Amino acid sequence: MVSTLLAAKKAKNLSFADLESMLGRDEVWIASLFYGQSTASAEEAAKLGEILDLDSATMEALQAYPTKGSLDPVIPTDPLIYRFYEIMQVYGMPLKDVIQEKFGDGIMSAIDFTLDVDKVEDPAGARVKVTMCGKFLPYKKW
Amino acid sequence: MVSTLLAAKKAKNLSFADLESMLGRDEVWIASLFYGQSTASAEEAAKLGEILDLDSATMEALQAYPTKGSLDPVIPTDPLIYRFYEIMQVYGMPLKDVIQEKFGDGIMSAIDFTLDVDKVEDPAGARVKVTMCGKFLPYKKW
Amino acid sequence: MVSTLLAAKKAKNLSFADLESMLGRDEVWIASLFYGQSTASAEEAAKLGEILDLDSATMEALQAYPTKGSLDPVIPTDPLIYRFYEIMQVYGMPLKDVIQEKFGDGIMSAIDFTLDVDKVEDPAGARVKVTMCGKFLPYKKW
Amino acid sequence: MVSTLLAAKKAKNLSFADLESMLGRDEVWIASLFYGQSTASAEEAAKLGEILDLDSATMEALQAYPTKGSLDPVIPTDPLIYRFYEIMQVYGMPLKDVIQEKFGDGIMSAIDFTLDVDKVEDPAGARVKVTMCGKFLPYKKW
Amino acid sequence: MVSTLLAAKKAKNLSFADLESMLGRDEVWIASLFYGQSTASAEEAAKLGEILDLDSATMEALQAYPTKGSLDPVIPTDPLIYRFYEIMQVYGMPLKDVIQEKFGDGIMSAIDFTLDVDKVEDPAGARVKVTMCGKFLPYKKW
Amino acid sequence: MVSTLLAAKKAKNLSFADLESMLGRDEVWIASLFYGQSTASAEEAAKLGEILDLDSATMEALQAYPTKGSLDPVIPTDPLIYRFYEIMQVYGMPLKDVIQEKFGDGIMSAIDFTLDVDKVEDPAGARVKVTMCGKFLPYKKW
Amino acid sequence: MVSTLLAAKKAKNLSFADLESMLGRDEVWIASLFYGQSTASAEEAAKLGEILDLDSATMEALQAYPTKGSLDPVIPTDPLIYRFYEIMQVYGMPLKDVIQEKFGDGIMSAIDFTLDVDKVEDPAGARVKVTMCGKFLPYKKW
Amino acid sequence: MVSTLLAAKKAKNLSFADLESMLGRDEVWIASLFYGQSTASAEEAAKLGEILDLDSATMEALQAYPTKGSLDPVIPTDPLIYRFYEIMQVYGMPLKDVIQEKFGDGIMSAIDFTLDVDKVEDPAGARVKVTMCGKFLPYKKW
Amino acid sequence: MVSTLLAAKKAKNLSFADLESMLGRDEVWIASLFYGQSTASAEEAAKLGEILDLDSATMEALQAYPTKGSLDPVIPTDPLIYRFYEIMQVYGMPLKDVIQEKFGDGIMSAIDFTLDVDKVEDPAGARVKVTMCGKFLPYKKW
Amino acid sequence: MVSTLLAAKKAKNLSFADLESMLGRDEVWIASLFYGQSTASAEEAAKLGEILDLDSATMEALQAYPTKGSLDPVIPTDPLIYRFYEIMQVYGMPLKDVIQEKFGDGIMSAIDFTLDVDKVEDPAGARVKVTMCGKFLPYKKW
Repeated sequence: MVSTLLAAKKAKNLSFADLESMLGRDEVWIASLFYGQSTASAEEAAKLGEILDLDSATMEALQAYPTKGSLDPVIPTDPLIYRFYEIMQVYGMPLKDVIQEKFGDGIMSAIDFTLDVDKVEDPAGARVKVTMCGKFLPYKKW
Repeated sequence: MVSTLLAAKKAKNLSFADLESMLGRDEVWIASLFYGQSTASAEEAAKLGEILDLDSATMEALQAYPTKGSLDPVIPTDPLIYRFYEIMQVYGMPLKDVIQEKFGDGIMSAIDFTLDVDKVEDPAGARVKVTMCGKFLPYKKW
Repeated sequence: MVSTLLAAKKAKNLSFADLESMLGRDEVWIASLFYGQSTASAEEAAKLGEILDLDSATMEALQAYPTKGSLDPVIPTDPLIYRFYEIMQVYGMPLKDVIQEKFGDGIMSAIDFTLDVDKVEDPAGARVKVTMCGKFLPYKKW
Repeated sequence: MVSTLLAAKKAKNLSFADLESMLGRDEVWIASLFYGQSTASAEEAAKLGEILDLDSATMEALQAYPTKGSLDPVIPTDPLIYRFYEIMQVYGMPLKDVIQEKFGDGIMSAIDFTLDVDKVEDPAGARVKVTMCGKFLPYKKW
Repeated sequence: MVSTLLAAKKAKNLSFADLESMLGRDEVWIASLFYGQSTASAEEAAKLGEILDLDSATMEALQAYPTKGSLDPVIPTDPLIYRFYEIMQVYGMPLKDVIQEKFGDGIMSAIDFTLDVDKVEDPAGARVKVTMCGKFLPYKKW
Repeated sequence: MVSTLLAAKKAKNLSFADLESMLGRDEVWIASLFYGQSTASAEEAAKLGEILDLDSATMEALQAYPTKGSLDPVIPTDPLIYRFYEIMQVYGMPLKDVIQEKFGDGIMSAIDFTLDVDKVEDPAGARVKVTMCGKFLPYKKW
Repeated sequence: MVSTLLAAKKAKNLSFADLESMLGRDEVWIASLFYGQSTASAEEAAKLGEILDLDSATMEALQAYPTKGSLDPVIPTDPLIYRFYEIMQVYGMPLKDVIQEKFGDGIMSAIDFTLDVDKVEDPAGARVKVTMCGKFLPYKKW
Repeated sequence: MVSTLLAAKKAKNLSFADLESMLGRDEVWIASLFYGQSTASAEEAAKLGEILDLDSATMEALQAYPTKGSLDPVIPTDPLIYRFYEIMQVYGMPLKDVIQEKFGDGIMSAIDFTLDVDKVEDPAGARVKVTMCGKFLPYKKW
Repeated sequence: MVSTLLAAKKAKNLSFADLESMLGRDEVWIASLFYGQSTASAEEAAKLGEILDLDSATMEALQAYPTKGSLDPVIPTDPLIYRFYEIMQVYGMPLKDVIQEKFGDGIMSAIDFTLDVDKVEDPAGARVKVTMCGKFLPYKKW
Repeated sequence: MVSTLLAAKKAKNLSFADLESMLGRDEVWIASLFYGQSTASAEEAAKLGEILDLDSATMEALQAYPTKGSLDPVIPTDPLIYRFYEIMQVYGMPLKDVIQEKFGDGIMSAIDFTLDVDKVEDPAGARVKVTMCGKFLPYKKW
């Protein structure tokens, strides 16, 4: 399904940013839907089907609950994705300490969570800004 | 050295946020210095030594170039850190596509890079906001 | 710290069930505190210190935010623990489907979560009943 | 066979809970049968075949003894399933101690075993309740 | 504790077969106790303590419930032990089929289980006979 | 070839025990032949071909020397097979010591080796008896 | 696509060195394009298409942003490629120290990077000269 | 020994480049000697001992044949070293093809091999130049 | 290609030893050519093509430079091949020491290398003699 | 014990070849004894103790049955040892076929086995000759 969706988008010559303004969902979320990591509502599937001329089987598949996890090797080999893994290797423990100093014992949710990408212009060269924002979940005691 | 530094900070009852205002460096960067992932200048080491009553061996160690990588298991077991790994499993390919649509073939640098943590108040519960910002590096052709 | 706590408990000849009634916390949660997987409040640490004659360093350590994950090998070798891993190998996908049929796309939280153990008498031999109860977290769209 | 069965169930618009009331078996067990992890009796296969219009080859396959294990990667990447793996990382040793305090040296059987899922309504949001119940097997000495 | 016990046995110049006749337990089970894989009763610990002049800490340790699993590498490197791993690689699936043809869907228990070693004299050279005998556990349906 | 042979056997409604009495070879060895782990002589292949109506290509394949090893994952996920792996985790070192006390430095051959399965009736439930018998091979010095 | 391109090149009887002089790009870079590790501009794709008689789908594929990483096993088995892995095992830490003595804390970019292969004639036998040249990226502090 | 040597060098305030001019060996080779990856002759060990005030045990250790391999994790976590691993992931197959087009079937020796690091000044920022040069070894036929 | 070649050889009823006398190359080298691990010259490919009635595509493929490495799992499961892996586990370090005592710091080449198999008759049973002979390559200093 | 023995040998300035002529055992076998992979008889231990001035604890340890396997990482990083691993990657399947053509289905024993190292002078440079000779063990049928 991933290749069907990417091919349909390419045929229409649309970027994920274009789809963002058409669907009213963030481009990263839409891309995660294309890669079988998220679930569309019936309305979202219908709208996307109309935009991209999808058949009904594809529209139905968009509404299924996927088995998630899009990376084959345990440690990603693609340099762009690997850098995020490296960031956790280098800054994982520092990040944990700073979050826990601010919030206590718990985690940032990866479910009640948003992820945005922005381009920051800079005289020394454009910068990629990735913003993750997840609900803090404190450990429950019982 | 990691435990020496964390104990000294605890003895002084200082948070990384306190150190941020005293040192003029971001709290995450300072935490990465504590965890042996970054390198202090002579001035930064001296200032930190004064604040935390460090001996000269520790101050010198802060200026060494570390062998980086703070996570023992290949896939982290700590739930807070694991969530960032999971985010890459679920959103890695979508993120790659959106970055490349915006910037072309290349990567976000993890070296010319900053990482910030903020607390976002929200009626449904506070949220953790993690902002990564790295220079875009296009692939060179030759 | 794990062995200090277990030795102190043994010296007092107390079970985790005894500690449950003394501390007002579930025995499994208390055991997770002993194994460095949870965090005590100052009051809980003080009370436990009194019951077990702990020194102040141990009482302080009980209040730290631990780096979690108590199993060394990726796949546990201890037969009692392995069985829970096997349950996920055999019943993981069925469990996922049934939960998602009842709740939609999302997960059971392992943070806002409780875990209880009960003994069920049975003429064919006693049974172990393990009850896990976590908040359902639906995937956020953005 | 997994996809054949899931497609047949979808075509009839039945949930696993519907099948539970029709077959007189728990929905989790039925789902485990769909995923090739359990074995149906001839009667169960016939009844399911009637409900879902299965062909005779599929009905026969339901009665075979499967090679079990439904998770491809050693550590599951799907967030819902991973949480159960994480629970063992965090609570595995505590759970072992509490079970052994109650029962002695031995294990909870994963064979003479049942697994149930319930929805618990709660003002702060519905909760997933997973109940595992297995016979205690004491280690034999010889 | 493993080396303490093995040294004590060596000092007394006793084989596991000698201990079998003194303790009334099988030599393999006694060896598993020495390697921290089994649990002695108070009487067994006392008797063994007397035979081997053990101190009380060691006798108490014999009665603890161990975290089991005595092989460090995932695939054993010692040739004697590796051969048993190889036997499962070569004969695992055939063994599964034959057991299931005789017993139905289920497993041989490794808990309600005995293991014996015998020497079989043979003109072409002595043979090692290893006999495993475990209760058959049929899969429960629910 | 594995599925061809298993299907042919099923079509004739024969168990491995039936084949044992027809072929004059043990049922486990025959099952290992079906799983491509052993080699038939020309006579054995012909006899089996007659019994199961095999074509000549299959009969020839039975006589090839296979690349052995029938388990895909390094640690088997199927519970029946895993138990044998667990037995080595728990009893591997004890077994090594007892064999070496009886035989000296060397191994039990997995090549000059037989493997039998028997059903032992028992009031508390039938037991699986697995007997392995291999030539002892002492380490050669040179 | 890899095999299509290699076959087209073979059919034209061209080496990568020939393509270097025709395309005005280094032979290693062109080979990396053939192996789906780099991205061609529209002009480069058109020129290559003309030289090798490629169809338009292949020419378009050359312009996509690939998921990089051309080695299947984590540690390469091919002896030529393995030697480069071995060089890092043996000279990795020394190389790190020398680079950091010359440049400070940072890395050699693998993105703003060129790679050349030359043949060095030598009376004792020809030598392979591999030259890597990447921009030095100093760690940013923030 | 690694830390002894690095500390002695630091105490004398010498860089590897300084040692290169004093010893008449390349700085990378000297660094590999410090990291226990190479072997000094008696004269080299004596000279280095004089420069760094080493004791005789250290000087002798420098002449031993080491068990090589300085990286702990299979895939290096340090970003500087990882980049060289990534270069092989991305350019390994292209490099293999280009070398074989120039030389035939064989490898670049990692034993009859030199490795140099140079700093290349550049208006856009200094560049790291790593030159590897090894004898080509053609596969022998027999 | 592997199966094509093995089938052609079988159809002609030739052993590798037969091919050795026909081609003037060692049987092991010819087998390595069949398994895609070596490269034939044009003459060798033509001769083999004639002997085995190969088509021209196969003859051309024999002359390509293969990506080497014929074992799928990291640790081989086939008992015959595993024994060579075990020999390195048990005798690897001793072998290293003896070679280095005789030759100094360096390695036995696996490229300028021959491998022969002989049958040694012996009253206690035939023995397999495997002779490896590779050029010694001393580490170069620079 | 490994370092004790190697130091004692070094103090006496003896090579393994010297020990071979003194002990009447092959140098490789003696080296394997030093590395804790083989077992000495009482006489061999006494003789070696006399030659190297060993204490009685070391002499006794030489007579124990070791847990074998001298390589830590699964794939050896030392280049000398790795080459033997590579030889199996490249020539493993060819070797298997040639051995089986000569001997039938079975293996070369790694237990009833000898290993010798010789230096072969050659005008193009000395060669390392490694001879392995093990009893052929045919698979038993039962």
